[in-house]
Amino acid sequence: MIAVGIDVGGTSIKGATIKNDGTILHRFSMPMDKYKKPEETIGELCELVNKTLKENKYDDKVVGIGIGIPGTFNNETGVIVSCPNLPTWAGFNLKEFMENKCHLYVKMVNDADAAAIAEAKFGVGKKYNYVLMITLGTGVGGGIVINKNLYNGNLGMGAELGHMVIELDGKECGCGRKGCFEAYASATALNRETKEAMDKNPNSLLHEIVHELGGIDARVPFLAEKRGDEAAKEVVNNYVKYLSEGLLNYCNIFRPNIIVLSGGVANEGDNLLNRVRTYMKLHNYGMRKAPEVIIEQATLGYDAGKIGAAALYF
Amino acid sequence: MIAVGIDVGGTSIKGATIKNDGTILHRFSMPMDKYKKPEETIGELCELVNKTLKENKYDDKVVGIGIGIPGTFNNETGVIVSCPNLPTWAGFNLKEFMENKCHLYVKMVNDADAAAIAEAKFGVGKKYNYVLMITLGTGVGGGIVINKNLYNGNLGMGAELGHMVIELDGKECGCGRKGCFEAYASATALNRETKEAMDKNPNSLLHEIVHELGGIDARVPFLAEKRGDEAAKEVVNNYVKYLSEGLLNYCNIFRPNIIVLSGGVANEGDNLLNRVRTYMKLHNYGMRKAPEVIIEQATLGYDAGKIGAAALYF
Repeated sequence: MIAVGIDVGGTSIKGATIKNDGTILHRFSMPMDKYKKPEETIGELCELVNKTLKENKYDDKVVGIGIGIPGTFNNETGVIVSCPNLPTWAGFNLKEFMENKCHLYVKMVNDADAAAIAEAKFGVGKKYNYVLMITLGTGVGGGIVINKNLYNGNLGMGAELGHMVIELDGKECGCGRKGCFEAYASATALNRETKEAMDKNPNSLLHEIVHELGGIDARVPFLAEKRGDEAAKEVVNNYVKYLSEGLLNYCNIFRPNIIVLSGGVANEGDNLLNRVRTYMKLHNYGMRKAPEVIIEQATLGYDAGKIGAAALYF
Repeated sequence: MIAVGIDVGGTSIKGATIKNDGTILHRFSMPMDKYKKPEETIGELCELVNKTLKENKYDDKVVGIGIGIPGTFNNETGVIVSCPNLPTWAGFNLKEFMENKCHLYVKMVNDADAAAIAEAKFGVGKKYNYVLMITLGTGVGGGIVINKNLYNGNLGMGAELGHMVIELDGKECGCGRKGCFEAYASATALNRETKEAMDKNPNSLLHEIVHELGGIDARVPFLAEKRGDEAAKEVVNNYVKYLSEGLLNYCNIFRPNIIVLSGGVANEGDNLLNRVRTYMKLHNYGMRKAPEVIIEQATLGYDAGKIGAAALYF
């Protein structure tokens, strides 16, 4: 069995034909112009899908298209509700449009959810029944996969895991609330804290490293801390605390077997993860005698979105 | 089909034989001595169950016993992990013990979860697929019922919904963390705030009402506020804010169709609920264009625990 998996990103749309064991057969991609009308962009995408399927005569059956959307949609009708970075897409019935053009069944999924499904079925979470995935990127997204099924919520709009307030009246969040997990644990938040530390500490090594890397990104405070910088240490420690407290909340709420971290900040790997593990163990998951939760980095990288979207059929 | 539903409380154990439409046939109860060994208490309970079943010759099949436990347990083995108010119960294999004495299959459930199941199957949530129940009592408990199935988490230890930090480094919580939802939204927390307001405001009507009622309980600030007391108004407004923010978190995390509130504070009914609804609408569930979440009071009252425990079989 084969499905098409597509990941809609801010600068490109990437897709692949994928076997039901999670292996990628053929990749395709096209640039993304976010100001174009969705009919035009998705029209082009459909041509690319049709071409890929025509060029590669698969022996196995192609069962459908799964597409990961960076936003929310009504999973009963297929209409996009809101894609913050694709302003023209709201109201567009993507499912109907694609089904008409490709003559294949189309399933939609939130992009963070797609990655969660991929890691739960084919990645580091494949041995477990309760897999929580948290993406630490521009925002904080996530998904909970229960017995290999994504938790959806009413109209498919559940598990907006970045938008849990962890500090009442705290930092402003893009969602309109104050103090959300995303406002502390995203790469954007980490960069904001790095910037603030730089402003406060003109002699910090942070300045030097930003210069070396050509700009601020999630690596900066970790690199500066390794070289013994005190301001960076404070940034990292605070980040670990907020991230860990949010994850502890999710341990109590979902009691997953494993939390899989992905996205820019998670690329820090065990240097970050070991601290998070230590913090979380100290706090014993907020409840005595609760079963331990494994914290791991995602393993499927940039393919996770595509694989997870295709895996809606597997 | 008939099942036995049992609710283990701090002062008594209450049970009933219950039909699979949720109706109660025969009730039974016994006092609870929390310092007795569990073998003794559960031994007595089993005799009571056997007697009830013998005295009432049911035409329908009695399929098993469901028992709601005020704590955590391993739902694979049946061993109690921790019941904060029943110190001698930890380590006791309740399932095995009861199955041997009653010759019926025994299923265990957390007591807050049992109430959630009952409301989702037979109460105010029966029309909905995603039902979140939050109990505002001595602590804050809850459960999420997805398509009539309780979410369990690893080893049945998920959905400890009171232990989500909403104010980092905030009020100390019984669980060991600081700033949990429970530390602000429980009846205990409300009483603490009432007490503090009384200490700060010696002329507040709160003193008079506590005197009238013979002590502090969740009704006090609401009654004082109705009579125009400013200190009480502040207590109520703060409570509504913390409760609503916690519920908004759960809207984003689970996107339920309905949140059902139960427990002492929820008895305030629409006087509390309307404020919570207003606060939550103003904050638009933290995400633009998210489907509205209905907020309602539980309807099954003290029977919810029994009905939900029995409903593990329905």
